[in-house]
Amino acid sequence: MNRALILRTLGLVLLVEAGAMLPSLGIALYLNESDYMAFAITIAIVAVTGFSLARTRLDTKDVGYREGFIIATAGWFFLALFGALPFTISGTIPGFINAFFETMSGFTTTGASVLTDIESLSKSILFWRSLTHWLGGMGIIVLTLALIPSLKIAGMKLFRAEVPGPAKSKVLPRVAQTSRELYKLYLIITVAEIAALKLAGLNWFDSFIQTFGTVATGGFSNYNASIAAFDSPVVHYIIIFFMFICGINFALHFYALRGNFRPLWRDPETRLYFFVTMTACLIITVNLITTMNYGVEKAFRQSAFQVTSILTTTGFATADYTGWPVLSQAVILLLMFIGGCAGSTGGGIKNVRYLILFKSAARQFAKLFHPKAIIPVRLGRDVIPEELVESVQNFFFLYFMLLLTSTLVIAAMGIDLLSSLTAVAASLGNIGPGFGIVSPASNYAAIPATGKLLLAFCMLVGRLEIYTVLVVFSARLWRS
Amino acid sequence: MNRALILRTLGLVLLVEAGAMLPSLGIALYLNESDYMAFAITIAIVAVTGFSLARTRLDTKDVGYREGFIIATAGWFFLALFGALPFTISGTIPGFINAFFETMSGFTTTGASVLTDIESLSKSILFWRSLTHWLGGMGIIVLTLALIPSLKIAGMKLFRAEVPGPAKSKVLPRVAQTSRELYKLYLIITVAEIAALKLAGLNWFDSFIQTFGTVATGGFSNYNASIAAFDSPVVHYIIIFFMFICGINFALHFYALRGNFRPLWRDPETRLYFFVTMTACLIITVNLITTMNYGVEKAFRQSAFQVTSILTTTGFATADYTGWPVLSQAVILLLMFIGGCAGSTGGGIKNVRYLILFKSAARQFAKLFHPKAIIPVRLGRDVIPEELVESVQNFFFLYFMLLLTSTLVIAAMGIDLLSSLTAVAASLGNIGPGFGIVSPASNYAAIPATGKLLLAFCMLVGRLEIYTVLVVFSARLWRS
Repeated sequence: MNRALILRTLGLVLLVEAGAMLPSLGIALYLNESDYMAFAITIAIVAVTGFSLARTRLDTKDVGYREGFIIATAGWFFLALFGALPFTISGTIPGFINAFFETMSGFTTTGASVLTDIESLSKSILFWRSLTHWLGGMGIIVLTLALIPSLKIAGMKLFRAEVPGPAKSKVLPRVAQTSRELYKLYLIITVAEIAALKLAGLNWFDSFIQTFGTVATGGFSNYNASIAAFDSPVVHYIIIFFMFICGINFALHFYALRGNFRPLWRDPETRLYFFVTMTACLIITVNLITTMNYGVEKAFRQSAFQVTSILTTTGFATADYTGWPVLSQAVILLLMFIGGCAGSTGGGIKNVRYLILFKSAARQFAKLFHPKAIIPVRLGRDVIPEELVESVQNFFFLYFMLLLTSTLVIAAMGIDLLSSLTAVAASLGNIGPGFGIVSPASNYAAIPATGKLLLAFCMLVGRLEIYTVLVVFSARLWRS
Repeated sequence: MNRALILRTLGLVLLVEAGAMLPSLGIALYLNESDYMAFAITIAIVAVTGFSLARTRLDTKDVGYREGFIIATAGWFFLALFGALPFTISGTIPGFINAFFETMSGFTTTGASVLTDIESLSKSILFWRSLTHWLGGMGIIVLTLALIPSLKIAGMKLFRAEVPGPAKSKVLPRVAQTSRELYKLYLIITVAEIAALKLAGLNWFDSFIQTFGTVATGGFSNYNASIAAFDSPVVHYIIIFFMFICGINFALHFYALRGNFRPLWRDPETRLYFFVTMTACLIITVNLITTMNYGVEKAFRQSAFQVTSILTTTGFATADYTGWPVLSQAVILLLMFIGGCAGSTGGGIKNVRYLILFKSAARQFAKLFHPKAIIPVRLGRDVIPEELVESVQNFFFLYFMLLLTSTLVIAAMGIDLLSSLTAVAASLGNIGPGFGIVSPASNYAAIPATGKLLLAFCMLVGRLEIYTVLVVFSARLWRS
């Protein structure tokens, strides 16, 4: 185990975090907010800690996946731990566990909040709160690229040569170069949404905050009413568009931005994602028109917004779906178990896994008729390796085991069954709101402290695709 | 496809059903109940239909698994279809769909009822209603033996040589002989429970009815209050004991009755089943003592009864667990997704599948450290074939897909989310009661007719281990 490399990398992560707090310090100073001290103190603590860790001397440059698992898990944990300091020091969020929950929710792009009055927060604190989303979203895209392929969990399709025809032998770009391209892409989408929202009439601050929540599929807003605070259909449609975009594999956008839309159109996962969105949207639109006396446009917009928000695991709201008819509620509940696409900032089980699981189940039937046939699982024109199929099946099982056992623990604290189940589902899937006491109109304040710690753990486990975190808790990793 | 053989076998099944209605006809005549006409008419219809089908001439004796799938699915369907006639003709259950639901619930050993006043039924009707359980339980044991092994879903361990030491080459007994042994065993357990209940003070009729519900892990009682109608701890403990026994692989009892307890003690599935029962029982007992002011004995008995009843998928009740604290409710909810052991009359996902899924997930972690190692999944001393592992994983996925999509359809009828979800879970797992409007204190009367049809379908799909039924709906089966 290359402990030095781990410490050093964690140090660099903390230095980035300290740097990322500078804009909030600037905002506090510019607006004369008293929270500037909280940021100044935190930056000092984080920078010093980061600097001492980053100075660790490397004995060797040897690095394997083990180090990667630890860096990812400890990295997200430290980001949340130190990122919670401004909330605590400023007294904005009472109780360190609450602050830790809020920050973990931010960095994992979950968007579950313990705050009952968001609008009472200072601008600098609000900015930091939403920036954790944006940083987390950026982090997950690099992680998908660097670490997830080793886990064989269908996040590996990034940047593979998708060009049809004879020119098939494109070489995989190196991780560093690819990261740079993805950062650029992430930045382009961010700038585009900020500009769109500004043009639609929002002020700069609101444009930034909603954009951070959107592109990371996070869900923190600076308004108690979430996106319903903006009484403008155009704003709703802009956010729907960008949420939808950010739920798609970024590698496909990479080609699309270069004028090659073929990989996007042809991608089986994107097609399923599109199909799920359209179907859910249609069912709920019709349901709302017939039962709630909404006009067609309003029904469609409310439906499209909530569907996209939950499916992409963003968690923004323009309506409280727990007040909708049961059919619409059930559709939303179902979407909570699907999620976005691999290689996007979206969380959840993800569409490509469902594709693989369905095709594996279909193969089972085929094998009943041809017991000795060797039938590969295909995705588009690709043959999925058997170990990947198995890995996805194990992922699905572990996901539901984590869901059910964590639900049991939350229920043990006296939270009703539906609230417990959906609070865990919303944490594990990095969504944010659930049903019952954690509905979009409510928040996570009523969950006891130990419950918040468990849910924060679920967020981390879900964000890092289960294996990364669980493997760090296995004794085998630490041996030798 | 050997259509003649299918028709002939279905004819024989119906002749057995006609014969099985004779005791009810006898009871009706003996007690001067007006329902004797309903039974006489039904017996005539079923016998004539059965006789005409059974006369189908066989062109060939060729028979494969395809015929088996169709016979099992159509067999259970016809049993429920014709078995519903006495309820309809006698006017006991208004609406044929209600009668069909009740009978399907009986034959699949589910125990979900649409009846709001069970005690108003005649003795002959009550006897028939409970006998469907007993016949269904007997049917499933033979099916597990004959058909399920072809599906590779871990029901195949029946009667394999389990003797340790050098004498390993025991030959698998033929299906017919094995069936006979299992029938005998089923009968022995049935007689033992009837005798025990009679000695505990129940009258003969009540002893028979509760026994039919127990050994088939069905759950129909002849009292509105289910087993709570018997104010006798001894009766409760007897039924707990027999429910627990009938949730275990019958092959293991076969050896145990011959004095060889080793296979039972050593079986990994039985150990997990025992562990789950004890853990759930302990949690709920402590929870009830501390929150409901129950004495230790009462808390233990209520806990043990409800835990065993739900885990074995029986569905009897001595208490309404939806009135318990949330922790206990959550434990019960979790048990609904586990179920009994393979080769028992119990339904659900089953313990052995969880064992295989957990071991497969553990292997995934091991492979992260040794990517090229070939690590078999072991159960006790046996190596589980890879195709069985995969089949179990596909089963788990399909189970949850059926659960979520059916929940959506039930919710579309306006039933609240928790009731919809647990009504489907209780049908798919052949349990009976769920939460909300389908709690043990309530029944399925409030579900709309189309919902009842869907739930009846879920019962059949769950009882026949998913693949059997779904494959019958695949076009491929009917080609050629």
